[in-house]
Amino acid sequence: MTQSFGERLLATFATSGHLCVGVDPHPYLLSDWGLADSADGVREFGLRVVDAAAGRVGILKPQVAFFERHGSAGFAALETVLAAAREAGLLVIADAKRGDIGSTAAAYGEAWLRPGSSLEADAMTISAFQGVGSLDEPIRLAREAGKGLFVLAATSNPQSIAPQSAVQNRGEFAGRSVAASIVDEVNRSNHGALGSLGVVIGATVRLADYGISDSDLTATPILAPGFGHQGAGYDAISSVYGAAAPNLVVSSSRAILDAGVSGVADAIATQAREIAEVFAA
Amino acid sequence: MTQSFGERLLATFATSGHLCVGVDPHPYLLSDWGLADSADGVREFGLRVVDAAAGRVGILKPQVAFFERHGSAGFAALETVLAAAREAGLLVIADAKRGDIGSTAAAYGEAWLRPGSSLEADAMTISAFQGVGSLDEPIRLAREAGKGLFVLAATSNPQSIAPQSAVQNRGEFAGRSVAASIVDEVNRSNHGALGSLGVVIGATVRLADYGISDSDLTATPILAPGFGHQGAGYDAISSVYGAAAPNLVVSSSRAILDAGVSGVADAIATQAREIAEVFAA
Repeated sequence: MTQSFGERLLATFATSGHLCVGVDPHPYLLSDWGLADSADGVREFGLRVVDAAAGRVGILKPQVAFFERHGSAGFAALETVLAAAREAGLLVIADAKRGDIGSTAAAYGEAWLRPGSSLEADAMTISAFQGVGSLDEPIRLAREAGKGLFVLAATSNPQSIAPQSAVQNRGEFAGRSVAASIVDEVNRSNHGALGSLGVVIGATVRLADYGISDSDLTATPILAPGFGHQGAGYDAISSVYGAAAPNLVVSSSRAILDAGVSGVADAIATQAREIAEVFAA
Repeated sequence: MTQSFGERLLATFATSGHLCVGVDPHPYLLSDWGLADSADGVREFGLRVVDAAAGRVGILKPQVAFFERHGSAGFAALETVLAAAREAGLLVIADAKRGDIGSTAAAYGEAWLRPGSSLEADAMTISAFQGVGSLDEPIRLAREAGKGLFVLAATSNPQSIAPQSAVQNRGEFAGRSVAASIVDEVNRSNHGALGSLGVVIGATVRLADYGISDSDLTATPILAPGFGHQGAGYDAISSVYGAAAPNLVVSSSRAILDAGVSGVADAIATQAREIAEVFAA
Protein backbone atom coordinates (compact mmCIF):
# COMPACT_ATOMS: atom_id res chain seq x y z
CA MET A 1 0.00 0.00 0.00
CA THR A 2 1.24 3.50 -0.83
CA GLN A 3 2.63 5.34 2.16
CA SER A 4 0.68 8.53 2.77
CA PHE A 5 2.28 11.95 2.44
CA GLY A 6 1.61 12.58 6.13
CA GLU A 7 3.53 9.42 7.04
CA ARG A 8 6.40 10.41 4.77
CA LEU A 9 6.45 13.91 6.24
CA LEU A 10 6.59 12.54 9.80
CA ALA A 11 9.50 10.29 8.81
CA THR A 12 11.29 13.24 7.22
CA PHE A 13 10.84 15.38 10.35
CA ALA A 14 12.38 12.54 12.39
CA THR A 15 15.40 11.97 10.17
CA SER A 16 16.04 15.41 8.69
CA GLY A 17 14.22 18.01 10.73
CA HIS A 18 11.71 20.71 9.83
CA LEU A 19 13.61 23.09 7.56
CA CYS A 20 12.30 23.42 4.01
CA VAL A 21 14.63 25.17 1.59
CA GLY A 22 13.00 27.42 -0.97
CA VAL A 23 14.19 27.42 -4.58
CA ASP A 24 13.30 30.96 -5.60
CA PRO A 25 15.40 32.10 -8.55
CA HIS A 26 14.56 35.79 -8.29
CA PRO A 27 16.22 37.84 -11.02
CA TYR A 28 18.40 39.59 -8.41
CA LEU A 29 19.59 36.23 -7.05
CA LEU A 30 20.44 34.93 -10.51
CA SER A 31 22.60 38.01 -10.94
CA ASP A 32 24.23 37.58 -7.51
CA TRP A 33 24.95 33.94 -8.28
CA GLY A 34 26.55 34.81 -11.65
CA LEU A 35 23.79 33.10 -13.62
CA ALA A 36 21.84 34.28 -16.65
CA ASP A 37 18.22 35.42 -16.26
CA SER A 38 17.09 32.59 -18.55
CA ALA A 39 15.74 29.06 -18.46
CA ASP A 40 19.33 27.78 -18.30
CA GLY A 41 19.99 30.10 -15.39
CA VAL A 42 17.02 28.95 -13.32
CA ARG A 43 17.89 25.29 -14.06
CA GLU A 44 21.46 25.78 -12.88
CA PHE A 45 20.27 27.72 -9.82
CA GLY A 46 17.83 24.97 -8.91
CA LEU A 47 20.37 22.18 -9.34
CA ARG A 48 22.88 23.99 -7.14
CA VAL A 49 20.29 24.40 -4.39
CA VAL A 50 19.42 20.70 -4.69
CA ASP A 51 23.11 19.81 -4.30
CA ALA A 52 23.44 22.07 -1.29
CA ALA A 53 20.25 20.76 0.32
CA ALA A 54 20.83 17.03 -0.21
CA GLY A 55 22.00 15.40 3.00
CA ARG A 56 21.52 18.61 4.99
CA VAL A 57 17.71 18.93 5.03
CA GLY A 58 14.75 16.81 4.01
CA ILE A 59 12.37 19.18 2.22
CA LEU A 60 12.68 21.45 -0.81
CA LYS A 61 10.14 23.98 -2.11
CA PRO A 62 10.63 25.28 -5.65
CA GLN A 63 8.70 28.50 -6.33
CA VAL A 64 7.01 27.77 -9.65
CA ALA A 65 6.50 31.43 -10.61
CA PHE A 66 10.22 32.02 -11.17
CA PHE A 67 10.38 29.08 -13.60
CA GLU A 68 7.07 29.97 -15.30
CA ARG A 69 8.52 33.41 -15.96
CA HIS A 70 10.67 31.69 -18.61
CA GLY A 71 7.77 29.93 -20.33
CA SER A 72 7.93 26.34 -21.53
CA ALA A 73 11.74 26.39 -21.35
CA GLY A 74 11.45 27.42 -17.71
CA PHE A 75 9.08 24.51 -17.08
CA ALA A 76 11.56 22.14 -18.73
CA ALA A 77 14.19 23.50 -16.35
CA LEU A 78 11.82 22.95 -13.42
CA GLU A 79 11.23 19.35 -14.52
CA THR A 80 14.99 18.76 -14.35
CA VAL A 81 15.19 20.34 -10.90
CA LEU A 82 12.18 18.39 -9.57
CA ALA A 83 13.62 15.10 -10.81
CA ALA A 84 17.05 15.84 -9.34
CA ALA A 85 15.52 16.76 -5.99
CA ARG A 86 13.40 13.63 -5.76
CA GLU A 87 16.38 11.52 -6.92
CA ALA A 88 18.36 13.05 -4.06
CA GLY A 89 15.70 11.83 -1.63
CA LEU A 90 14.26 15.25 -0.86
CA LEU A 91 10.55 15.65 -0.23
CA VAL A 92 9.49 18.22 -2.81
CA ILE A 93 6.67 20.76 -2.37
CA ALA A 94 5.83 22.57 -5.61
CA ASP A 95 4.84 26.08 -4.54
CA ALA A 96 2.32 26.62 -7.33
CA LYS A 97 -0.69 28.14 -5.51
CA ARG A 98 -2.98 26.78 -8.22
CA GLY A 99 -6.72 26.84 -7.84
CA ASP A 100 -9.80 26.19 -9.94
CA ILE A 101 -12.90 24.01 -9.90
CA GLY A 102 -13.93 20.49 -10.85
CA SER A 103 -12.14 18.94 -13.79
CA THR A 104 -9.90 22.00 -14.16
CA ALA A 105 -8.63 21.67 -10.59
CA ALA A 106 -8.20 17.96 -11.35
CA ALA A 107 -5.92 18.87 -14.25
CA TYR A 108 -3.68 20.91 -11.95
CA GLY A 109 -3.56 18.00 -9.52
CA GLU A 110 -2.59 15.66 -12.34
CA ALA A 111 0.16 18.02 -13.49
CA TRP A 112 1.92 18.12 -10.12
CA LEU A 113 0.86 15.00 -8.22
CA ARG A 114 0.23 12.22 -10.73
CA PRO A 115 2.96 9.60 -10.52
CA GLY A 116 4.91 9.74 -13.75
CA SER A 117 3.97 13.32 -14.63
CA SER A 118 6.98 15.26 -15.86
CA LEU A 119 6.26 17.87 -13.15
CA GLU A 120 5.72 15.28 -10.41
CA ALA A 121 6.30 16.58 -6.89
CA ASP A 122 5.44 15.10 -3.49
CA ALA A 123 3.04 17.91 -2.64
CA MET A 124 1.84 21.25 -3.97
CA THR A 125 0.40 24.45 -2.60
CA ILE A 126 -3.14 25.25 -3.68
CA SER A 127 -5.73 28.00 -3.19
CA ALA A 128 -9.30 27.51 -1.98
CA PHE A 129 -10.58 30.96 -2.96
CA GLN A 130 -13.37 29.07 -4.76
CA GLY A 131 -14.05 26.93 -1.68
CA VAL A 132 -12.30 23.83 -0.36
CA GLY A 133 -15.03 21.83 -2.11
CA SER A 134 -13.67 23.07 -5.45
CA LEU A 135 -10.54 21.02 -4.69
CA ASP A 136 -12.23 17.63 -4.24
CA GLU A 137 -10.54 16.18 -7.31
CA PRO A 138 -6.93 17.05 -6.45
CA ILE A 139 -7.61 15.99 -2.83
CA ARG A 140 -8.81 12.60 -4.06
CA LEU A 141 -5.83 12.25 -6.41
CA ALA A 142 -3.39 13.16 -3.63
CA ARG A 143 -4.87 10.54 -1.32
CA GLU A 144 -4.69 7.82 -3.96
CA ALA A 145 -1.12 8.65 -4.97
CA GLY A 146 0.35 9.20 -1.49
CA LYS A 147 0.80 12.90 -2.23
CA GLY A 148 0.13 16.04 -0.20
CA LEU A 149 -1.57 19.39 -0.63
CA PHE A 150 -1.06 22.58 1.35
CA VAL A 151 -4.13 24.80 1.15
CA LEU A 152 -3.52 28.53 1.66
CA ALA A 153 -5.27 29.55 4.89
CA ALA A 154 -3.64 32.45 6.79
CA THR A 155 -0.75 33.69 4.74
CA SER A 156 2.18 35.80 5.84
CA ASN A 157 1.69 39.00 3.83
CA PRO A 158 -0.01 41.96 5.54
CA GLN A 159 -2.64 42.43 2.79
CA SER A 160 -4.07 38.96 3.38
CA ILE A 161 -5.63 39.37 6.81
CA ALA A 162 -8.73 41.28 5.62
CA PRO A 163 -10.07 38.56 3.28
CA GLN A 164 -8.73 35.59 5.25
CA SER A 165 -10.17 36.75 8.58
CA ALA A 166 -13.54 37.66 7.01
CA VAL A 167 -16.42 35.86 8.70
CA GLN A 168 -18.61 33.53 6.68
CA ASN A 169 -22.35 33.90 6.99
CA ARG A 170 -23.40 31.04 4.72
CA GLY A 171 -22.91 27.31 4.59
CA GLU A 172 -21.79 24.71 7.07
CA PHE A 173 -19.09 26.89 8.60
CA ALA A 174 -21.14 30.05 9.12
CA GLY A 175 -19.66 32.10 11.92
CA ARG A 176 -16.13 30.90 11.21
CA SER A 177 -13.52 32.95 9.37
CA VAL A 178 -12.46 32.03 5.86
CA ALA A 179 -9.13 30.70 7.18
CA ALA A 180 -10.72 28.78 10.08
CA SER A 181 -13.26 27.23 7.75
CA ILE A 182 -10.42 26.05 5.51
CA VAL A 183 -8.73 24.48 8.54
CA ASP A 184 -12.01 22.76 9.51
CA GLU A 185 -12.59 21.39 6.01
CA VAL A 186 -8.97 20.26 5.65
CA ASN A 187 -9.11 18.42 8.98
CA ARG A 188 -12.19 16.54 7.90
CA SER A 189 -10.21 14.99 5.02
CA ASN A 190 -7.37 13.92 7.29
CA HIS A 191 -6.76 10.88 9.45
CA GLY A 192 -3.82 9.32 11.25
CA ALA A 193 -1.16 10.92 13.42
CA LEU A 194 -0.45 13.46 10.68
CA GLY A 195 -2.78 14.00 7.74
CA SER A 196 -1.77 14.46 4.11
CA LEU A 197 -3.82 17.57 3.55
CA GLY A 198 -2.06 20.56 5.07
CA VAL A 199 -2.49 24.30 5.34
CA VAL A 200 -0.30 27.33 4.77
CA ILE A 201 -0.19 29.53 7.85
CA GLY A 202 2.47 32.22 7.95
CA ALA A 203 4.78 32.76 10.90
CA THR A 204 3.82 36.44 10.97
CA VAL A 205 0.15 35.87 11.93
CA ARG A 206 -1.72 35.48 15.22
CA LEU A 207 -4.03 32.46 15.01
CA ALA A 208 -6.58 34.17 17.26
CA ASP A 209 -7.12 36.87 14.63
CA TYR A 210 -8.67 34.14 12.48
CA GLY A 211 -10.49 32.30 15.25
CA ILE A 212 -8.09 29.37 14.90
CA SER A 213 -6.68 27.54 17.91
CA ASP A 214 -3.39 25.65 17.88
CA SER A 215 -5.36 22.64 19.12
CA ASP A 216 -7.23 22.63 15.76
CA LEU A 217 -3.92 21.86 14.06
CA THR A 218 -2.34 19.03 16.01
CA ALA A 219 -2.73 16.49 13.18
CA THR A 220 -2.46 18.93 10.26
CA PRO A 221 0.74 19.56 8.30
CA ILE A 222 1.51 23.29 8.28
CA LEU A 223 3.68 24.96 5.67
CA ALA A 224 5.03 28.03 7.44
CA PRO A 225 6.50 30.86 5.39
CA GLY A 226 7.30 34.24 6.86
CA PHE A 227 10.57 33.52 8.64
CA GLY A 228 13.60 35.64 7.86
CA HIS A 229 12.99 38.11 5.06
CA GLN A 230 9.31 38.59 6.01
CA GLY A 231 10.13 39.28 9.63
CA ALA A 232 9.39 36.31 11.89
CA GLY A 233 12.10 34.80 14.11
CA TYR A 234 12.30 31.18 15.22
CA ASP A 235 10.59 32.14 18.48
CA ALA A 236 7.41 32.16 16.34
CA ILE A 237 7.64 28.36 16.12
CA SER A 238 6.25 28.13 19.63
CA SER A 239 4.66 31.57 20.06
CA VAL A 240 2.54 31.37 16.89
CA TYR A 241 1.93 27.63 16.43
CA GLY A 242 1.98 26.35 20.04
CA ALA A 243 0.80 22.74 20.24
CA ALA A 244 0.92 22.48 16.43
CA ALA A 245 4.65 23.22 16.22
CA PRO A 246 5.60 19.54 15.72
CA ASN A 247 3.77 19.63 12.35
CA LEU A 248 5.64 22.63 10.98
CA VAL A 249 7.42 22.74 7.67
CA VAL A 250 9.63 25.77 8.34
CA SER A 251 10.10 27.45 4.99
CA SER A 252 13.15 29.59 4.35
CA SER A 253 14.13 31.02 1.00
CA ARG A 254 15.90 34.32 0.69
CA ALA A 255 17.58 34.10 4.11
CA ILE A 256 19.38 31.04 2.70
CA LEU A 257 19.72 31.99 -0.96
CA ASP A 258 21.15 35.44 -0.16
CA ALA A 259 24.28 33.60 1.07
CA GLY A 260 25.26 33.21 -2.57
CA VAL A 261 26.39 30.18 -4.49
CA SER A 262 29.46 29.64 -2.33
CA GLY A 263 27.62 30.11 0.96
CA VAL A 264 24.32 28.33 0.38
CA ALA A 265 25.34 24.91 1.76
CA ASP A 266 26.67 26.44 4.97
CA ALA A 267 23.60 28.66 5.30
CA ILE A 268 21.37 25.59 5.01
CA ALA A 269 23.40 23.65 7.57
CA THR A 270 23.37 26.58 10.00
CA GLN A 271 19.62 27.17 9.71
CA ALA A 272 18.89 23.46 10.00
CA ARG A 273 20.92 23.30 13.22
CA GLU A 274 19.28 26.41 14.68
CA ILE A 275 15.82 25.05 13.93
CA ALA A 276 16.71 21.62 15.35
CA GLU A 277 17.75 23.37 18.57
CA VAL A 278 14.41 25.15 18.77
CA PHE A 279 12.55 21.86 18.33
CA ALA A 280 14.77 20.08 20.85
CA ALA A 281 14.24 22.77 23.47
CA MET B 1 1.26 55.62 -26.36
CA THR B 2 0.18 52.04 -25.72
CA GLN B 3 -3.56 51.52 -26.02
CA SER B 4 -4.98 50.24 -22.74
CA PHE B 5 -6.55 46.81 -22.45
CA GLY B 6 -9.87 48.44 -21.57
CA GLU B 7 -9.77 50.44 -24.79
CA ARG B 8 -8.92 47.35 -26.81
CA LEU B 9 -11.70 45.41 -25.13
CA LEU B 10 -14.25 48.13 -25.92
CA ALA B 11 -13.13 48.11 -29.55
CA THR B 12 -13.44 44.31 -29.66
CA PHE B 13 -16.97 44.45 -28.23
CA ALA B 14 -17.92 46.93 -30.97
CA THR B 15 -16.46 44.96 -33.87
CA SER B 16 -16.81 41.37 -32.75
CA GLY B 17 -19.26 41.18 -29.88
CA HIS B 18 -19.04 39.78 -26.37
CA LEU B 19 -18.55 36.04 -26.83
CA CYS B 20 -15.30 34.60 -25.54
CA VAL B 21 -14.50 31.09 -26.70
CA GLY B 22 -12.83 28.81 -24.17
CA VAL B 23 -9.99 26.53 -25.21
CA ASP B 24 -10.40 23.71 -22.69
CA PRO B 25 -8.83 20.50 -23.96
CA HIS B 26 -10.45 18.21 -21.41
CA PRO B 27 -9.34 14.59 -21.82
CA TYR B 28 -12.90 13.62 -22.86
CA LEU B 29 -12.93 16.31 -25.55
CA LEU B 30 -9.56 15.23 -26.94
CA SER B 31 -11.03 11.75 -27.29
CA ASP B 32 -14.23 13.07 -28.91
CA TRP B 33 -12.16 15.14 -31.34
CA GLY B 34 -10.01 12.13 -32.30
CA LEU B 35 -6.88 13.63 -30.75
CA ALA B 36 -4.29 12.08 -28.45
CA ASP B 37 -4.24 12.97 -24.75
CA SER B 38 -0.78 14.47 -25.16
CA ALA B 39 1.01 17.77 -25.72
CA ASP B 40 0.56 17.26 -29.47
CA GLY B 41 -3.14 16.66 -28.90
CA VAL B 42 -3.72 19.84 -26.90
CA ARG B 43 -1.71 21.87 -29.45
CA GLU B 44 -3.80 20.54 -32.32
CA PHE B 45 -7.02 21.08 -30.33
CA GLY B 46 -6.04 24.67 -29.57
CA LEU B 47 -5.07 25.47 -33.14
CA ARG B 48 -8.38 24.12 -34.45
CA VAL B 49 -10.32 26.28 -31.99
CA VAL B 50 -8.27 29.31 -33.05
CA ASP B 51 -9.11 28.58 -36.70
CA ALA B 52 -12.79 28.22 -35.88
CA ALA B 53 -12.86 31.37 -33.76
CA ALA B 54 -10.93 33.68 -36.09
CA GLY B 55 -13.32 35.99 -37.91
CA ARG B 56 -16.32 34.76 -35.91
CA VAL B 57 -15.54 36.17 -32.45
CA GLY B 58 -13.04 38.55 -30.90
CA ILE B 59 -11.93 36.89 -27.66
CA LEU B 60 -10.34 33.54 -26.83
CA LYS B 61 -9.67 32.09 -23.38
CA PRO B 62 -7.26 29.14 -23.16
CA GLN B 63 -7.59 27.21 -19.89
CA VAL B 64 -3.98 26.84 -18.77
CA ALA B 65 -4.59 23.81 -16.52
CA PHE B 66 -5.27 21.50 -19.47
CA PHE B 67 -1.94 22.45 -21.04
CA GLU B 68 -0.03 22.37 -17.74
CA ARG B 69 -1.29 18.81 -17.29
CA HIS B 70 1.24 17.88 -20.00
CA GLY B 71 4.18 19.64 -18.34
CA SER B 72 6.74 21.67 -20.26
CA ALA B 73 5.65 20.09 -23.54
CA GLY B 74 2.10 21.23 -22.80
CA PHE B 75 3.37 24.76 -22.18
CA ALA B 76 5.24 24.66 -25.50
CA ALA B 77 1.93 23.69 -27.11
CA LEU B 78 0.20 26.56 -25.34
CA GLU B 79 2.86 28.99 -26.59
CA THR B 80 2.05 27.92 -30.14
CA VAL B 81 -1.69 28.34 -29.54
CA LEU B 82 -1.28 31.75 -27.89
CA ALA B 83 0.88 33.01 -30.76
CA ALA B 84 -1.57 31.71 -33.38
CA ALA B 85 -4.50 33.33 -31.60
CA ARG B 86 -2.84 36.72 -31.30
CA GLU B 87 -1.63 36.44 -34.91
CA ALA B 88 -5.27 35.86 -35.90
CA GLY B 89 -6.22 39.13 -34.19
CA LEU B 90 -8.00 37.54 -31.25
CA LEU B 91 -7.83 39.14 -27.81
CA VAL B 92 -6.42 36.36 -25.62
CA ILE B 93 -7.22 35.88 -21.94
CA ALA B 94 -4.97 33.27 -20.31
CA ASP B 95 -7.17 31.57 -17.73
CA ALA B 96 -4.36 30.88 -15.26
CA LYS B 97 -5.88 31.92 -11.90
CA ARG B 98 -2.39 32.59 -10.57
CA GLY B 99 -1.85 34.34 -7.28
CA ASP B 100 1.01 35.11 -4.92
CA ILE B 101 2.66 38.12 -3.31
CA GLY B 102 5.25 40.75 -4.14
CA SER B 103 8.04 39.70 -6.45
CA THR B 104 6.51 36.25 -6.89
CA ALA B 105 3.24 37.72 -8.16
CA ALA B 106 5.38 39.96 -10.36
CA ALA B 107 6.98 36.85 -11.90
CA TYR B 108 3.53 35.50 -12.83
CA GLY B 109 2.65 38.84 -14.37
CA GLU B 110 5.87 38.80 -16.38
CA ALA B 111 5.20 35.26 -17.60
CA TRP B 112 1.81 36.10 -19.09
CA LEU B 113 1.74 39.85 -19.70
CA ARG B 114 5.26 40.99 -20.52
CA PRO B 115 5.55 41.91 -24.19
CA GLY B 116 7.84 39.36 -25.82
CA SER B 117 7.28 36.63 -23.24
CA SER B 118 6.79 33.25 -24.90
CA LEU B 119 3.50 32.94 -22.99
CA GLU B 120 2.35 36.48 -23.80
CA ALA B 121 -1.41 36.98 -23.67
CA ASP B 122 -3.53 40.14 -23.64
CA ALA B 123 -4.89 39.48 -20.18
CA MET B 124 -4.88 36.81 -17.48
CA THR B 125 -7.10 35.68 -14.66
CA ILE B 126 -5.64 36.06 -11.19
CA SER B 127 -6.62 35.34 -7.58
CA ALA B 128 -6.60 37.83 -4.72
CA PHE B 129 -6.92 35.29 -1.90
CA GLN B 130 -3.88 37.02 -0.40
CA GLY B 131 -5.47 40.46 -0.86
CA VAL B 132 -5.71 42.71 -3.91
CA GLY B 133 -2.67 44.52 -2.53
CA SER B 134 -0.63 41.36 -3.10
CA LEU B 135 -1.16 41.94 -6.83
CA ASP B 136 0.32 45.45 -7.02
CA GLU B 137 3.21 44.31 -9.21
CA PRO B 138 1.21 42.52 -11.92
CA ILE B 139 -1.32 45.40 -11.86
CA ARG B 140 1.49 47.88 -12.48
CA LEU B 141 2.97 45.70 -15.24
CA ALA B 142 -0.42 45.34 -16.91
CA ARG B 143 -0.95 49.09 -16.91
CA GLU B 144 2.46 49.77 -18.42
CA ALA B 145 2.13 47.11 -21.11
CA GLY B 146 -1.48 47.77 -22.12
CA LYS B 147 -2.55 44.43 -20.69
CA GLY B 148 -5.50 43.34 -18.57
CA LEU B 149 -6.17 41.32 -15.44
CA PHE B 150 -9.37 39.67 -14.31
CA VAL B 151 -9.40 39.20 -10.56
CA LEU B 152 -11.61 36.37 -9.25
CA ALA B 153 -14.43 37.95 -7.23
CA ALA B 154 -17.73 35.99 -7.22
CA THR B 155 -17.16 32.79 -9.13
CA SER B 156 -19.74 30.48 -10.62
CA ASN B 157 -19.26 27.27 -8.63
CA PRO B 158 -21.61 26.62 -5.68
CA GLN B 159 -18.77 26.03 -3.16
CA SER B 160 -17.46 29.56 -3.63
CA ILE B 161 -20.23 31.61 -2.08
CA ALA B 162 -19.26 30.92 1.55
CA PRO B 163 -15.73 32.39 1.39
CA GLN B 164 -16.51 35.04 -1.25
CA SER B 165 -19.55 36.43 0.58
CA ALA B 166 -17.76 36.41 3.96
CA VAL B 167 -17.77 39.84 5.58
CA GLN B 168 -14.47 41.54 6.33
CA ASN B 169 -13.98 43.04 9.77
CA ARG B 170 -10.53 44.52 9.27
CA GLY B 171 -8.92 47.05 7.00
CA GLU B 172 -10.22 49.75 4.75
CA PHE B 173 -13.17 47.72 3.48
CA ALA B 174 -14.48 46.47 6.82
CA GLY B 175 -18.16 45.67 6.53
CA ARG B 176 -17.88 44.69 2.87
CA SER B 177 -17.79 41.12 1.61
CA VAL B 178 -14.60 39.63 0.25
CA ALA B 179 -15.98 39.87 -3.30
CA ALA B 180 -17.29 43.43 -2.87
CA SER B 181 -13.99 44.54 -1.42
CA ILE B 182 -12.21 43.11 -4.47
CA VAL B 183 -14.59 45.08 -6.71
CA ASP B 184 -13.89 48.25 -4.70
CA GLU B 185 -10.12 47.83 -4.88
CA VAL B 186 -10.20 46.95 -8.56
CA ASN B 187 -12.27 50.03 -9.35
CA ARG B 188 -9.77 52.25 -7.60
CA SER B 189 -7.08 51.15 -10.08
CA ASN B 190 -9.27 51.86 -13.08
CA HIS B 191 -9.99 54.93 -15.13
CA GLY B 192 -11.61 55.74 -18.44
CA ALA B 193 -14.84 54.47 -19.96
CA LEU B 194 -13.71 50.90 -19.35
CA GLY B 195 -10.82 50.03 -17.04
CA SER B 196 -8.10 47.48 -17.70
CA LEU B 197 -8.47 45.71 -14.38
CA GLY B 198 -11.49 43.45 -14.45
CA VAL B 199 -13.22 40.94 -12.23
CA VAL B 200 -14.57 37.43 -12.64
CA ILE B 201 -18.23 37.23 -11.66
CA GLY B 202 -20.11 34.10 -12.64
CA ALA B 203 -23.47 34.15 -14.39
CA THR B 204 -24.87 31.82 -11.73
CA VAL B 205 -24.57 34.30 -8.85
CA ARG B 206 -26.81 37.03 -7.40
CA LEU B 207 -24.78 40.21 -6.88
CA ALA B 208 -26.86 41.12 -3.82
CA ASP B 209 -25.60 38.00 -2.02
CA TYR B 210 -22.18 39.67 -2.01
CA GLY B 211 -23.35 43.22 -1.34
CA ILE B 212 -22.36 44.22 -4.87
CA SER B 213 -24.55 46.50 -7.00
CA ASP B 214 -24.48 46.50 -10.79
CA SER B 215 -23.82 50.23 -10.55
CA ASP B 216 -20.42 49.38 -8.95
CA LEU B 217 -19.41 47.71 -12.19
CA THR B 218 -20.29 50.13 -14.95
CA ALA B 219 -16.64 50.82 -15.87
CA THR B 220 -15.21 47.43 -14.91
CA PRO B 221 -14.55 44.61 -17.37
CA ILE B 222 -16.32 41.44 -16.21
CA LEU B 223 -15.30 37.96 -17.27
CA ALA B 224 -18.48 35.92 -16.93
CA PRO B 225 -18.27 32.14 -16.81
CA GLY B 226 -21.19 29.96 -15.86
CA PHE B 227 -23.22 29.99 -19.07
CA GLY B 228 -24.17 26.69 -20.66
CA HIS B 229 -22.66 23.68 -18.90
CA GLN B 230 -22.82 25.37 -15.47
CA GLY B 231 -26.46 26.29 -15.84
CA ALA B 232 -26.98 29.98 -16.67
CA GLY B 233 -28.91 31.04 -19.77
CA TYR B 234 -28.38 34.26 -21.73
CA ASP B 235 -31.21 35.87 -19.75
CA ALA B 236 -28.57 36.16 -16.98
CA ILE B 237 -26.82 38.84 -19.06
CA SER B 238 -29.43 41.34 -17.95
CA SER B 239 -30.89 39.63 -14.88
CA VAL B 240 -27.53 39.12 -13.13
CA TYR B 241 -25.40 41.99 -14.45
CA GLY B 242 -27.98 44.72 -15.13
CA ALA B 243 -26.31 48.05 -15.89
CA ALA B 244 -22.92 46.32 -16.11
CA ALA B 245 -23.96 44.06 -18.99
CA PRO B 246 -22.18 46.21 -21.62
CA ASN B 247 -18.84 45.24 -19.98
CA LEU B 248 -19.38 41.50 -20.13
CA VAL B 249 -16.99 39.02 -21.64
CA VAL B 250 -19.41 36.12 -22.06
CA SER B 251 -17.33 32.98 -21.63
CA SER B 252 -18.45 29.74 -23.23
CA SER B 253 -16.37 26.58 -23.38
CA ARG B 254 -17.94 23.15 -23.29
CA ALA B 255 -21.22 24.28 -24.86
CA ILE B 256 -19.13 25.14 -27.94
CA LEU B 257 -16.44 22.47 -27.76
CA ASP B 258 -18.96 19.64 -27.31
CA ALA B 259 -20.01 20.29 -30.92
CA GLY B 260 -16.92 18.37 -31.98
CA VAL B 261 -14.21 19.22 -34.45
CA SER B 262 -16.60 19.38 -37.40
CA GLY B 263 -19.20 21.45 -35.57
CA VAL B 264 -17.15 23.92 -33.58
CA ALA B 265 -17.12 26.74 -36.15
CA ASP B 266 -20.91 26.60 -36.55
CA ALA B 267 -21.39 26.41 -32.78
CA ILE B 268 -19.28 29.55 -32.36
CA ALA B 269 -21.18 31.40 -35.09
CA THR B 270 -24.54 30.39 -33.61
CA GLN B 271 -23.65 31.42 -30.06
CA ALA B 272 -22.11 34.69 -31.26
CA ARG B 273 -25.34 35.51 -33.11
CA GLU B 274 -27.54 34.59 -30.15
CA ILE B 275 -25.47 36.75 -27.81
CA ALA B 276 -25.44 39.65 -30.26
CA GLU B 277 -29.25 39.48 -30.33
CA VAL B 278 -29.37 39.67 -26.52
CA PHE B 279 -27.12 42.73 -26.52
CA ALA B 280 -29.08 44.38 -29.34
CA ALA B 281 -32.41 43.86 -27.55
